[in-house]
Parts: sequence; C-alpha cells; structure tokens
Amino acid sequence: MICVVCGGVGAARMLAGLVQVVDPSSIVAVVNTGDDTELHGLSISPDLDTITYTLAGAVNPETGWGLAGESWQAMSALERLGGADRTWFRLGDRDLATHLYRTGRLREGAALSEVTAELAAAFGLPVRLLPMSDDPVRTVLGTAGGELSFQEYFVKHRHAVAVQAVRFEGAEAARPAPGVLEAIEQATAIVLAPSNPVVSIGPVLAVPGVAEALAARRADVVGVSPIVGGAALKGPADRLLVELGGEASAAGVARLLSGVLGTLVIDEVDRHLAVEVESAGVRAIVTDTVMSTPARARRLAEAVLAAPAGAGGG
Amino acid sequence: MICVVCGGVGAARMLAGLVQVVDPSSIVAVVNTGDDTELHGLSISPDLDTITYTLAGAVNPETGWGLAGESWQAMSALERLGGADRTWFRLGDRDLATHLYRTGRLREGAALSEVTAELAAAFGLPVRLLPMSDDPVRTVLGTAGGELSFQEYFVKHRHAVAVQAVRFEGAEAARPAPGVLEAIEQATAIVLAPSNPVVSIGPVLAVPGVAEALAARRADVVGVSPIVGGAALKGPADRLLVELGGEASAAGVARLLSGVLGTLVIDEVDRHLAVEVESAGVRAIVTDTVMSTPARARRLAEAVLAAPAGAGGG
Repeated sequence: MICVVCGGVGAARMLAGLVQVVDPSSIVAVVNTGDDTELHGLSISPDLDTITYTLAGAVNPETGWGLAGESWQAMSALERLGGADRTWFRLGDRDLATHLYRTGRLREGAALSEVTAELAAAFGLPVRLLPMSDDPVRTVLGTAGGELSFQEYFVKHRHAVAVQAVRFEGAEAARPAPGVLEAIEQATAIVLAPSNPVVSIGPVLAVPGVAEALAARRADVVGVSPIVGGAALKGPADRLLVELGGEASAAGVARLLSGVLGTLVIDEVDRHLAVEVESAGVRAIVTDTVMSTPARARRLAEAVLAAPAGAGGG
Repeated sequence: MICVVCGGVGAARMLAGLVQVVDPSSIVAVVNTGDDTELHGLSISPDLDTITYTLAGAVNPETGWGLAGESWQAMSALERLGGADRTWFRLGDRDLATHLYRTGRLREGAALSEVTAELAAAFGLPVRLLPMSDDPVRTVLGTAGGELSFQEYFVKHRHAVAVQAVRFEGAEAARPAPGVLEAIEQATAIVLAPSNPVVSIGPVLAVPGVAEALAARRADVVGVSPIVGGAALKGPADRLLVELGGEASAAGVARLLSGVLGTLVIDEVDRHLAVEVESAGVRAIVTDTVMSTPARARRLAEAVLAAPAGAGGG
C-alpha cells in the first residue's frame, strides 16, 4: 500500500501518474482539507474535489480544477442577484451537485470521510481518498489588511497579497480521519505530493499525530519539490516560502519538511541544489518533475517509487 | 394600500391580476413560509419564490413554479451522485442561485424579510413582499406512516397520502415579520388569495397576532375560494379539507376561515352555495374565479377590490 499526502492540482497529477504504475486500489490519498470552505451554506472541499475529478477523468484540463464541459447558469444568475461579491468563488452547475451532495450528507450527520468515500465511489475512483480529518481545520492567512480565509486569499485576492503568518484554525482539536494514521504506519512507501508545502502539506502536518507518524516513517517518505528553478509550478508556494522566512527553492522545501522527509525528488534544473538538500538531512533524487503530460507524470511516479530508503527516521 | 395574504401559485396569479388594476407599489403581500424547507444545506422558500418569479414574468408558465427556460445540470449530476432520494425536490440551475443567495445572506445574519426584499428588488418586483415571519415555522403533516414535512408530503409523495393532522412547528414562538401587522392594520382592503386554506393560509394565521389582526379587520377581508365545484384548482386543498373534518366546497372554506373572513368570492359554478357561505357569517360574492388567463385574473382582481364591506368584525 502506498500513502500519498496531497494538496490539490499537483497532487491530483501525481496520483494520476501513480495509478499508471501501481494497482490503484493500493493507493491511499490523505488530502488537505484546510482549504475547505463554506459558501452560500454549502460545504466545499476543493482539494478533495480536484483529486476526485482528475482521477475520474472529469476535470477541466485547462484549469486543473472544476469539471470539463461545465455550465455556469447558477453563477450567472447569482451574479445578477448578488454581484461579484457572491461569485468570486466559481461554482459550475455540475460541480454544485457535488457540494449539494456533500452538504446534505454532512447535515444528516455523516462524517466527511464517509461522504468522501461515497463521492469517490460515485465517480468510480480506483484509489482510496481520505480527508486528513473529519474535524474542521481552516487555513487562515495573516496579512497587513487582516486575516483571510484560504479561499479569500487564494481565489478572491488571487494570492496577490503579502502573507505575514499562517495558522490552521481548529488543528489543535482535530483528529486524523479514520484510516489516516494506519495508512502512514502500514504503507510501503509514503509520498508527499508536489503540493504547496506551507498551505497544502502544512495543514495535514498540523493535525495532531500526523507529523509524528510521518516522522516515524521518515526513511520511507519521498517528497516531490513543488518548487522548480526557484518558482512554484502553480500558485503562491514560492512567495509564501519567502514571506514566511524560508527560501523559494527545492532546498527551502527540504529544510521546511526535513522533520518528515527522508527523500526529496528535485527537478533536473535544480541539480545544483542536491548538496544543499542533503545538507538538510534529506536524500536528494534528481529527475524530470514537471508533469506536463500523463507520460511525464507516469515517469515521475516511477522515479518516486524507485527511490531507495531515504535519510533515517526521527 | 392593499394587503394580500398569500400561499404560492394561486396567490401569485391573484397578485398578477391585482397589479393590473391598482398601483403595484400599494400592494403588500404577506406570504406563507410554512412550506419553507432546508435541502442540501440550502434555505428554500417556495411560496416566496413562486410569487417573485411570477411577478417578474420569469416563472415557468407550464408548472406555475420555477423559472422559465430553466436548465437542470446540477440536478442531473446530483441524480448520478445520490439518486432519486436526493432529487425529488427539483432545483433548476438558475433557481439554485436564488437559494444560494438566500442561504448566504441568512448565514450572514440577515433576516428572511431583508433577504426577501433584496431578492424582490433584484427581480424588479413592483410589490412589497413580506414573509409571514422571520422565525422558522414549518408545516408538518401527520399521516398513518408518521409525520411528513410539507415538501415531503407535497412533492415527494405528490400529496397522495391521507393526512390525519396538521401542525405548524415553531408557530407559537414565531413573531410576525416587520410590517405584517402594520399592513393588516392599515390596508384599505385585505385579500386572502385563493390559496390552500389549510396549509397555505393556515400557517399565516398560526403566527401569533396575525389572526387577531385580521379578525379586527374582518369586514374588510375578502377571500377567494380555492375550491371550485368541489375540487381544488391545484393541489390537495379539497382532500385536506375533508380529511381534517371539513368540507371540500366554498362553504367549507367559508366555515374554516369565518373568523377572519368578511367576504368570500366564489365561482359561478358554486352560486348555489352562496346561502351556505352566508350562513357561516361570511358575505358571498359570485363571479368567475378561474384565473386561466391574465385577463381573467384582472377581472377577478377587479371583483375582489369592488367587494363591499363584508360581514362585520370580531
């Protein structure tokens, strides 16, 4: 069994590579829910949905999120009713069904992990998806203008605002969802997907017990750097790393995650950083990491799974 | 100022007639919210929406509810996720925007009456719409198989189940929405729309203070019988009247509402019931009441407003 710690788009592509090289039913994805939000009364789990839609072959290939061939009747009508203040988070008509289903089931008392499994089954997913926690954890970003929820920061402000601090509201009281610690403990390989180390991997590590479980398996934890050539492939990971006192580089990622990371796969363009990664106590593996095609995602997945045991635990 | 006590489809047609014969801005509609429901986390107010869509000229003319030219992408997708158990209450894509807006605003702390005014303004409505109460009142129907919410009874079971009792959950603690009692007290004419007397007018009367205020204006209260020739023009009013010990006739309506009703407009086909209506202490006016066209709705509105003062108050 392979356990993959996931954010959204980058993780979805990593999983799409992994399912090509191992039995998909042997994959357990532990997914960030710090991005989750409540809008219009609906419970929205962007990272879980991005992974679900991607693995179902239903994702919008242009954006990497949302559904392909989506229609926007509800958003257009909502725009007329409430203006842009109500519609900055775009919910397509068919995507809305996912949130209606999730919200309905949560209101009936189902746990997020149950609903996630039901949605994964409905979409015919071959892998097991687990939210990091059934308890609400919300990533909050401190800025000069006050605190923002993750989606306000990421979508409404298009992450074009300097971040002074990040906190994961609710994390202290959150418990790992059923199966999360078991997956980490029992996996033959643990993959940290190339997701934002601060706001995608960070919330997962903030759930009590998860970082400890990963640290105990550190030699078997292989990460993929989401920073290539000093820049994030997508999103604000590079800027966040710098704003929070780190470095926007594969070495910066290694240092940030060195407590749980035995090995970091870095891109060919960052080969010169291998020594610096290793000086953080993390084995470096150099290969092509940009998953611009399914074939490249497959080759990256092979490289990740072929990684020898990394720097020892704890 | 004219105050109209409203259910859904029949009331919407009555209002569409009234706006043809008086200044629309002089009309205050007090609308049943006992039909309101929460589905998928969304707050849905069917009667308010039916009236809004009708007066905006946006209603689906075939059903009398929902929006014309609606699309159903969200429901189709939800059907695939959750089956018929999730989709018996049909929410069109553009209609969903209304519920998203309402739910979002309620979550922000707005009162239903505020949200209703905002939606009415967004739809360009010329009349003033008031929910009967900002507090939740829910019509519950007792059946041999247990209690059903109004929408379960009306939509899911297509009202094809015998009703043994009706109660209005929350009514005791509900307060009339701001403006409701004032509208009743200050109106020059008060109209009880041809809505179901049990489950559309009944919840409004169950809000403490409303029936008392109407009774005090009884001579000026003119109802239109929703029962024509012994049958409801729409919905289960005829069966409900019988099941709850009354009579499915204009006379049965008069007896049920005699406490608040000075005058009842009954259809030509029920002319023979005029004496029976009057023996219930309610003045009877006979005219065409079937609003099958806008012109007929207009003529009925004229007849209602031309009604002389009815049987005296209290």
